[in-house]
Amino acid sequence: MTQIDDPSDDPNIDQQAFERLSRVRIVLVGTTLTRNIGAAARAMKVMGLRRLYLVKPKNLPDEDAFALAAGADDVLQQAVICDDLASAIGDCTLVFGTSARRRDIVITEFSPAAAARQALAMAAASEVALVFGSERTGLDNRELSLCQGRVQIPTDPDYSSLNLASAVQLIAYEIRLAALVVANESGQAHTHDHNRDVAPITQDIHVPAPAIEFDRLMQHYSEFLKEINFYSTKNPEKLLTRLRRIFQRAAPDQREIQILRGILSEAQSALGRR
Amino acid sequence: MTQIDDPSDDPNIDQQAFERLSRVRIVLVGTTLTRNIGAAARAMKVMGLRRLYLVKPKNLPDEDAFALAAGADDVLQQAVICDDLASAIGDCTLVFGTSARRRDIVITEFSPAAAARQALAMAAASEVALVFGSERTGLDNRELSLCQGRVQIPTDPDYSSLNLASAVQLIAYEIRLAALVVANESGQAHTHDHNRDVAPITQDIHVPAPAIEFDRLMQHYSEFLKEINFYSTKNPEKLLTRLRRIFQRAAPDQREIQILRGILSEAQSALGRR
Repeated sequence: MTQIDDPSDDPNIDQQAFERLSRVRIVLVGTTLTRNIGAAARAMKVMGLRRLYLVKPKNLPDEDAFALAAGADDVLQQAVICDDLASAIGDCTLVFGTSARRRDIVITEFSPAAAARQALAMAAASEVALVFGSERTGLDNRELSLCQGRVQIPTDPDYSSLNLASAVQLIAYEIRLAALVVANESGQAHTHDHNRDVAPITQDIHVPAPAIEFDRLMQHYSEFLKEINFYSTKNPEKLLTRLRRIFQRAAPDQREIQILRGILSEAQSALGRR
Repeated sequence: MTQIDDPSDDPNIDQQAFERLSRVRIVLVGTTLTRNIGAAARAMKVMGLRRLYLVKPKNLPDEDAFALAAGADDVLQQAVICDDLASAIGDCTLVFGTSARRRDIVITEFSPAAAARQALAMAAASEVALVFGSERTGLDNRELSLCQGRVQIPTDPDYSSLNLASAVQLIAYEIRLAALVVANESGQAHTHDHNRDVAPITQDIHVPAPAIEFDRLMQHYSEFLKEINFYSTKNPEKLLTRLRRIFQRAAPDQREIQILRGILSEAQSALGRR
């Protein structure tokens, strides 16, 4: 599925925010299926993350992994293989572990968005890591104890079987969103907005017509309804109020009002002709 | 990877927010790989979405699909197979298409979070759909024109090859987050504000008519424009697309569609009389 360019190619926004992504690594611990490693590489790269660390993978990246990587071969080829988690994160100043809730270990919990924001802030100056455990057992206590925080991805309590590469995809996505927020803030360009708190982005900004033209449209409708004797059976005022409400929601721009009035005019001519 | 319980099992929060998820459907159009269908089913279920629609899949769910579904077999088994997109979304009042940026069609763009919020708000009272195109080509113009908005998942402009099931995973995740926000808000309203009557969410909500009735309105317009010879001077298809866009923004409810069509019928009678 081909997806979209995003504001990271916009010259008006701060490109340094995206350079931070090069200081964010994804660490997979004890992964069993090589296809999950490949799918994780693709999931990373599509969000701008390139640095993959594999701690004691059960199997090294093979044909399956490269098939699933689908063009993210470079991420796989440059993956760093480590013997233990400690060496994979040795130079990192911030490490988050993604894991199910654990009642047997005390660790600060973060939502994916909160963890991503912190990770990206830290990546302005130093290395950060997001760590994912194996498909079956996740991260063990010893591994989690090396992390400053635990990231909890919200899932349905009745079926919480999130695929490993999907978990990487969600975290990578949140990290990209965090980069977009930083880029927008420092670039002060708010033309594109992937921030959660703000309204939908629009490609061609829709500018509703001035109120006076809107009123002319409604007036035109009123005349038209009179001509076709629609008023004889209806309450004219109530009907116009309803029409006004419909078109207020549509908030037509000038060109659209021309079209709507053009249709009315043409219908009036047709009535006159007959 | 086993993931976490989330607040949806917390008795203090509003469980109705999660019931809305049952009115959100995922529609996959022209999917080629059955393993993507299976992975999408798993991606949905882990976020609490169960309703999968398959429009003209190149291959029906097979062994591969069930292997990838990993326990989301029920979602696959109950998947609805449709011949075209229109019939898959006929009863939906809100339809978003996930697609790459398109410069050849004007459509309102939404971030995944904004789309999810709108979808969940609408799902309080009616059916909503999130539509995904095929792996290679995405949604075509005709399919996108049936959607009220386009969802853009931000990806790296240098490598935007997002896997189909990953796209479903990201949108399903945002929808779950939106449900959690609603649940927390209304849950807090209940716990912190026992004395105030909390209005039922569905009371004053504007419920757009199902897509099929909307299409009938557009069909009616098409006939009417032919009758008044409006097409002779204009590009009919382009004009209808523009009209569709205006009325999609207005999102008329059933009564309003009756009114709009009533006006057209009355005008047609007037034309016949003269």
